Amino acid sequence: MDSAVQSAKRSGRRRVGRPSQQVLSRKKIIETALRLLDAHGQDGFGMRDIAAELGVRASALYNHVEGKEDIFRGIRELIGERISGEMFETDPWDVALVAWAREYRDAFAAHPPTIALLAVMPLHPESSVSLAYDRVIRSLAAEGWSRDEALNILVSLESFILGSALDAAAAPDMMDPGPRADVPEFSAAYAARAVLVERTATPPADLAFETGLRLILNGLRAERAERSGRRRPDRSGVPGEPASGPAPEAQDSADPSEDAPRTAQARPVPSSGYSSAS
Amino acid sequence: MDSAVQSAKRSGRRRVGRPSQQVLSRKKIIETALRLLDAHGQDGFGMRDIAAELGVRASALYNHVEGKEDIFRGIRELIGERISGEMFETDPWDVALVAWAREYRDAFAAHPPTIALLAVMPLHPESSVSLAYDRVIRSLAAEGWSRDEALNILVSLESFILGSALDAAAAPDMMDPGPRADVPEFSAAYAARAVLVERTATPPADLAFETGLRLILNGLRAERAERSGRRRPDRSGVPGEPASGPAPEAQDSADPSEDAPRTAQARPVPSSGYSSAS
Repeated sequence: MDSAVQSAKRSGRRRVGRPSQQVLSRKKIIETALRLLDAHGQDGFGMRDIAAELGVRASALYNHVEGKEDIFRGIRELIGERISGEMFETDPWDVALVAWAREYRDAFAAHPPTIALLAVMPLHPESSVSLAYDRVIRSLAAEGWSRDEALNILVSLESFILGSALDAAAAPDMMDPGPRADVPEFSAAYAARAVLVERTATPPADLAFETGLRLILNGLRAERAERSGRRRPDRSGVPGEPASGPAPEAQDSADPSEDAPRTAQARPVPSSGYSSAS
Repeated sequence: MDSAVQSAKRSGRRRVGRPSQQVLSRKKIIETALRLLDAHGQDGFGMRDIAAELGVRASALYNHVEGKEDIFRGIRELIGERISGEMFETDPWDVALVAWAREYRDAFAAHPPTIALLAVMPLHPESSVSLAYDRVIRSLAAEGWSRDEALNILVSLESFILGSALDAAAAPDMMDPGPRADVPEFSAAYAARAVLVERTATPPADLAFETGLRLILNGLRAERAERSGRRRPDRSGVPGEPASGPAPEAQDSADPSEDAPRTAQARPVPSSGYSSAS
């Protein structure tokens, strides 16, 4: 038993006379767990640590949560509430997508230790996160993407968002190349960005996030414009990209056999499939 | 002292008679550390764990590495060697960028516990990673982006890549919404994607990665085409985006005051600045 657990136990014992049941709630347990996770990472975050923090016995927690897995689920819900995607109900798809991406990144950047954990955690069947996904997909489908494409777009955007949240958790000078003569372009770029950061009072991570968001949105707009024109560029070999694309109006691909054929090649040739916008 | 450390100590002692100095090398230590990190995460990865695995005393490691920080640095170099960006020396910028992004994601996806760690680790002044960055920035600058923009593009692409590497480490069915009636678009999209995965024999994470890569590349191509046409769209308010853009030829922004003025607004209005391609 390590000293953290021992001190947690002692702390739990010391306060055992308090009317702990009355102050305990699922919400309080999960908020406490998130605070511990932020402060100490995964290590300071056992059931006993949480109990000690709340001044109760670990067994009391089980009246409100099933265990650590359940607490993780609760943390995801807590963060997920901040990125419900409600703007998709009212705003144009692209305005909503940008606003949602920013909220999403900010929600995770506020809790760096959750990023890698929750990025690989399966969705719970009752998760409110699914409601947000439903909104995103409905919005994209209404603009002409098939639902499976919309899901690929959603997941790729999430990857960008979570990677950007990690970047936001890094030190602002993380990429400083230091004094060296063999990387002149990189050194010049780093110096130029430092001036930009200073002038715009915008952290490096925010500059990069907004740049990537702009590129992804412009990429989406280019695809949408191309579809509205009903041109059919050669994208054979690009997985996830229908050779016979959807109509510009929303298309139901709940039966995805509709938009066959697709090719079975796992990785496209780089020089084809990326050229729609030029 | 926990049992892992005790067993490491015992193991170290048991083999203490071997001529360990001769078989030890910096390379071997770092490769062993990466293997332990992959297998056990950060917890099974102390100097004593590494020593036990190699059958030496922990003190012997210090003849080759300075400590855990130095080993992290070595792991980054080891992974960095696989993503040197050498294709930028020979291939067109967009072909090289796609190839590099794929190598980069695959290199990290092969070692999931390194992703969140290395994403926030400062560059070492002698890192070979800086050489790769130099190549990327030179390639983008030659296509008309200023160096500070090129760095923002590079960082945003890295965020996407690292987020995608996390996604690749997740279970393929992680996003299964389960049986529920209130997310019909998401459920249909999940079912459609499952068919696509089956038909293309491509894992969900690869579909999403290729989708995002396509969008970012098309976003970049749209910007490049726009610059070649010397149009100057209104992007005021977008940080990292010069109000008076660079010439289509390479521009030296080592003195970034050249491309002033920029605006100081931290976050652009979503409806402006993302509309170049439509």
